[in-house]
Amino acid sequence: MTSTGFGFQVTATDGAARRGAFETPHGRVETPAFMPVGTQGAVKAVTWRDLEQVGAQIVLGNTYHLSLRPGDELIARRGGLHRFVNWSRPILTDSGGYQVFSLAGRRRVTEEGVWFQSHLDGARHLLSPERAVDIQARLGSDIAMILDECVASPGDEATARAAVERTRRWARRGRDRFLALRAGGVEGVTVTNPGQAQFGIVQGGVYRALREESVQATLDIGFEAYAIGGLSVGEPPPVMYDVVEYTAPLLPADRPRYLMGVGTPWDLVEAVARGIDLFDCVLPTRNARNGQLFTRTGRLNIKNARYAEDERPVDEACGCYTCRHASRAYLRHLFMAGEIAAATLNTLHNLTFYLDTMRRIRDAIVFGSFASFRAAFRETCTARLLD
Amino acid sequence: MTSTGFGFQVTATDGAARRGAFETPHGRVETPAFMPVGTQGAVKAVTWRDLEQVGAQIVLGNTYHLSLRPGDELIARRGGLHRFVNWSRPILTDSGGYQVFSLAGRRRVTEEGVWFQSHLDGARHLLSPERAVDIQARLGSDIAMILDECVASPGDEATARAAVERTRRWARRGRDRFLALRAGGVEGVTVTNPGQAQFGIVQGGVYRALREESVQATLDIGFEAYAIGGLSVGEPPPVMYDVVEYTAPLLPADRPRYLMGVGTPWDLVEAVARGIDLFDCVLPTRNARNGQLFTRTGRLNIKNARYAEDERPVDEACGCYTCRHASRAYLRHLFMAGEIAAATLNTLHNLTFYLDTMRRIRDAIVFGSFASFRAAFRETCTARLLD
Repeated sequence: MTSTGFGFQVTATDGAARRGAFETPHGRVETPAFMPVGTQGAVKAVTWRDLEQVGAQIVLGNTYHLSLRPGDELIARRGGLHRFVNWSRPILTDSGGYQVFSLAGRRRVTEEGVWFQSHLDGARHLLSPERAVDIQARLGSDIAMILDECVASPGDEATARAAVERTRRWARRGRDRFLALRAGGVEGVTVTNPGQAQFGIVQGGVYRALREESVQATLDIGFEAYAIGGLSVGEPPPVMYDVVEYTAPLLPADRPRYLMGVGTPWDLVEAVARGIDLFDCVLPTRNARNGQLFTRTGRLNIKNARYAEDERPVDEACGCYTCRHASRAYLRHLFMAGEIAAATLNTLHNLTFYLDTMRRIRDAIVFGSFASFRAAFRETCTARLLD
Repeated sequence: MTSTGFGFQVTATDGAARRGAFETPHGRVETPAFMPVGTQGAVKAVTWRDLEQVGAQIVLGNTYHLSLRPGDELIARRGGLHRFVNWSRPILTDSGGYQVFSLAGRRRVTEEGVWFQSHLDGARHLLSPERAVDIQARLGSDIAMILDECVASPGDEATARAAVERTRRWARRGRDRFLALRAGGVEGVTVTNPGQAQFGIVQGGVYRALREESVQATLDIGFEAYAIGGLSVGEPPPVMYDVVEYTAPLLPADRPRYLMGVGTPWDLVEAVARGIDLFDCVLPTRNARNGQLFTRTGRLNIKNARYAEDERPVDEACGCYTCRHASRAYLRHLFMAGEIAAATLNTLHNLTFYLDTMRRIRDAIVFGSFASFRAAFRETCTARLLD
């Protein structure tokens, strides 16, 4: 392997669940960890101050959006994404692939890369494995992701096989580019964070043999750590849990394992139970803006008329600013009135719920009580809708 | 006069400018003071925590909006507006008149009051002088405003005279209702803040004789304090300043004088110079959401391309969260990307600018340097656009 150390240490285990931490140029991340999504250089509806207050240790930025606006070269001139947005904690950037593959009818996949039209102005661009590396080098995230071929839905085995094979070839090219940048640079590419790590991605859909093959191919190339991609794309949750269950143990125990784009709170618990260390998802922030709030006893839709005069906080057990200061009645009013503060307050709460869940998971692993935590969590906080 | 004390004390004067404070059931307000506008139970794009941090001592709530949604009876059942929104500092509510008179084509003015159709569902409602008092009693603001007849533009003298006369008749009815509530209640009206004060409003357009007449009629009825209405409705600023200059000295020196709906930062300074103590305006918050920011050296439009790589804060001399943490380049990016955080950060800055301006005004009056402050302010911070 040609990967460098990543400072990941597992400090406790409980079954397959792992408690640990990894080091980045912008500090330490306690795992299992959840990354709020800051698509365009901001987590929607909140400020960085809010993210510090809710205890976010790392956030995700979207390479697709940032490369189009304000542009990765502009961000590089400004010293990189951390400095541009003024967030001093770790950032992971995706490769841009997921967004580009989602541009149905406006993208064409070739071996070279993906030709796509910008959703902003229709301009044609190429996202290649090398360009995905270059953009992320300019952004200067602490963790860069390799460009993989994303399959939109579980798909058939032939499609999944083709994606695994292309992902392997692209991963080789992406890793070579990354190592070339690290070794001394590539003309025209400013590296704003020399300590950046690069994660490989395992594809293979819901096919065990393909997942095994993809793991081996990705390990053969060698990355600082590894992610499981191509899940949470429409397959039933039990199928996703199965894939995680047989894929995670194939990945090196001494590197964090990242399950991309997942998921609901109970997905996080179930994936941790199968050995996952890192997550990202738009669910807490997007649902907040739609008025759906997570609580320790279930979900609630704040627009429901039953909350019109409910003086209780969203979640009695939550210590977030929203739960300490706003009643359900007030939150419902703000939502119905279309006030921006509704998005802010709801987002603060949902992010707190997610990050609290991760803290509770980490504590449970240390105390050897993860199995009972998981059982209780499933009981109280799964798909149950309070309304 | 049948008014009660309002605890207003003038502690320093400098020319016609006054430095003082008044007491309300929710605490003290240092004057001259500016009230951020919280139309629907929230100041747009920020939370109450932000308002405390920027130093807002009092905010304005809109009776029209709150009475329609969530409804003044609901708010009364929840203990009043302070408790419903969880803001413990003073609140002033307007009468709802300004919004109702603005519903061109959807309102009909009679002596009884204004019949109007809700902008939400088209339902017909009557806003009468008595109902304006009742609604505000339920909301429980610290300061309630009398229902006056609002003239949309400066208008001719006959129109202004008719508005003065109707305002006088309505003021009598509104004061009677307020005193009846104070004396022991009116069936069906919950008074959520027994210490509420009521301000009268002087009309008269740009006609000196009418303003004098309206002052006398309003003083004859007697209120805790007095406001100048019907300005900032399209007349040129020098005309507005003239009206303030001859109207303010006619109002009792021992009561705060409130200039409604005003204005730009330089309007505030010019009105203070003429004896005004209290202001409200949507300008800092609305302009923030449109990307227009106030600074000590002029205004700037953050969407201007010249700021794309400008690493300076909006205002070097400003200590707000936005100026301490965000560059113009980042703020421009957030605005262009349509991020909600743009509205929040811009609003924090503009409100800080307004409230800092009031602090500087208060300090200047105490130190006897208001004239030089005013001259310097006009020089640097008037209509000059930096872009």
